[in-house]
Amino acid sequence: MLIDPALFEENERTAPVADERQFLITGPYRCEVGGELPQVTIAYETWGTLNSDHSNAVLVCHALTGDAHAIGWWDRLIGPGRPIDTDLLFVIGVNVLGGCQGSTGPASLAADGRRYAMRFPIVTVGDMVEVQARLLDHLGIDQLYAVAGGSMGGMQALEWTVRFPNRVRKAFITASCSAHSAMQVGFNETARQAIMQDPRWNRGEYTDDEQPDGGLSVARMLGHLSFLSDAAFTAKFGRRLQDKDRFDFTFDTEFQVESYLKYQGSKFTKRFDANALLYVTRAIDYFERRSLKGSVADYLFTSFTSDWLYPSYQSEAMHQLALSAGCSSKHKIIDLPYGHDAFLLDGVHQGALVRDFLATN
Amino acid sequence: MLIDPALFEENERTAPVADERQFLITGPYRCEVGGELPQVTIAYETWGTLNSDHSNAVLVCHALTGDAHAIGWWDRLIGPGRPIDTDLLFVIGVNVLGGCQGSTGPASLAADGRRYAMRFPIVTVGDMVEVQARLLDHLGIDQLYAVAGGSMGGMQALEWTVRFPNRVRKAFITASCSAHSAMQVGFNETARQAIMQDPRWNRGEYTDDEQPDGGLSVARMLGHLSFLSDAAFTAKFGRRLQDKDRFDFTFDTEFQVESYLKYQGSKFTKRFDANALLYVTRAIDYFERRSLKGSVADYLFTSFTSDWLYPSYQSEAMHQLALSAGCSSKHKIIDLPYGHDAFLLDGVHQGALVRDFLATN
Repeated sequence: MLIDPALFEENERTAPVADERQFLITGPYRCEVGGELPQVTIAYETWGTLNSDHSNAVLVCHALTGDAHAIGWWDRLIGPGRPIDTDLLFVIGVNVLGGCQGSTGPASLAADGRRYAMRFPIVTVGDMVEVQARLLDHLGIDQLYAVAGGSMGGMQALEWTVRFPNRVRKAFITASCSAHSAMQVGFNETARQAIMQDPRWNRGEYTDDEQPDGGLSVARMLGHLSFLSDAAFTAKFGRRLQDKDRFDFTFDTEFQVESYLKYQGSKFTKRFDANALLYVTRAIDYFERRSLKGSVADYLFTSFTSDWLYPSYQSEAMHQLALSAGCSSKHKIIDLPYGHDAFLLDGVHQGALVRDFLATN
Repeated sequence: MLIDPALFEENERTAPVADERQFLITGPYRCEVGGELPQVTIAYETWGTLNSDHSNAVLVCHALTGDAHAIGWWDRLIGPGRPIDTDLLFVIGVNVLGGCQGSTGPASLAADGRRYAMRFPIVTVGDMVEVQARLLDHLGIDQLYAVAGGSMGGMQALEWTVRFPNRVRKAFITASCSAHSAMQVGFNETARQAIMQDPRWNRGEYTDDEQPDGGLSVARMLGHLSFLSDAAFTAKFGRRLQDKDRFDFTFDTEFQVESYLKYQGSKFTKRFDANALLYVTRAIDYFERRSLKGSVADYLFTSFTSDWLYPSYQSEAMHQLALSAGCSSKHKIIDLPYGHDAFLLDGVHQGALVRDFLATN
């Protein structure tokens, strides 16, 4: 299949400047595996209108380094007339607990006025979901029409259907899994070590002036290596050189792919907290659901042939768990060459499936 | 296919303690893309006996972080009665120029008594081969019966057949390629950045007491991620925990795969020079052979279905180049689940092919 380079370019678009986020501040929260937060801030955004019987809410859960601005990173699926149609549905995006895009996380200030840093309690996918449930309580939503997410967002969606079976009717889960494989844990641990081995990490006690940007950027480069397929890298970069016709024969940038990865790494350090990356990667490594017993949701799973980070067999395993739990479930494997990023890039195939899935009652 | 965990264990065996290396010290060497070394030391090892007409020599080229002790890392293929039979053949292993296992590299002392570090000239795969040719001159070998290598070793073997067409009869090239893809360059650049972003790297001017071990170990973890297949990681580690029955919920080691990767990273810092890793990864990123015109060698290419770092299509491309050059060539794709490491682990399938290939005249 041919790859349209424009698809990648579009994905680089930046989110709208206007910050439409809202913040819910709740009382103490006891984390699933120990530790208590005296107060939790939940950053969220909504689109569309909640109907009179509060039955048209869709919660959209973000991936590892995403944010509440779901209409930004999933614009191919969310919006007026889009598969997750904001003309009909009330769509909610929430930044996860433990992240750094407005919700409470390790970069937040603790009661002593200092950042939590590594004093922040270990957060699980279950905790992310529990905090989202508080937000739904606040919004007066007893039951979600649907929960949706890809990658780490898919884990949250899956967790919703088991933890709060009466609060979810449908779950759309893409490019995700019910438990990380050894290789997925390995990629995450290597990213964590890139941060923790950086002397500037200083056991998490870095300052604004001296942050572990080197380690964090390497962690992000590693992430981007795993987001694309070999075919996508070749289509996007090949062996093309960066702003030159011949090699300089130095250790500076020679190939376009080097420039791309270093740029992604550097850009990431300006928007993401190193400790937060430790916490969210840890959360998804711990995540493990071996049964969906008790769930009454309808499931739609999608996966992509070229996604080697979250291979299709993992979505198939979730689909089988759903069937074993007596749920209605579909798993569609989509043949696209973009790698893991396909779940963000594909509005067409995924879109049609999601539209149908949300249309049927 | 089932994976025998013992295969992996055996691969961890350490090389024999006795150092059988020999050293050839030659005069000035001008590198292909500029820079001159006043003197080059070539570390090598041999097994078997050179016959009277000097027609039974096989040069074995090592991969990225290998060494001259080929009988150690390729013991499934090399030895008495093995496919590369030291009872019949005179086998030569050579540490590459730019490495750190006895041959001249960035950790060697320059004329001013200080390490070259980043003053070392850029080295190409062509340079590695030129220096090996000097060793053959010294040993009185005009023509190799065969040259063999996997991964970076395969690139050297390929280069031999083009650069010195009259000096090579056969080339066995496994899990290799004629030019790195964008993804392969990307993995290497991320490894290099892991080193260069470590403040202790200090632009290459680190001391024995303070080396960029953190960055180097992360680079090695990244390497090991790319050496195994997803299936191999699952077979070897799954989600098993390291010396415990339940999670501690900390950022210390939880999973076995974390322990494995960190151990590999840490061990590597004790045997490999960080600057040398920069130079050898750069050499293979630069390498590009788009034609084998002029070669008169017979080729055997092997590749492995589960090797996603050096996928089979790259070996097929080399095979097609060999055919286009009018050479005799075979490419066999071997269905084994071990990933890139298969080229080191598989003595059986590869072994039978190599035995046949070397037996025919």
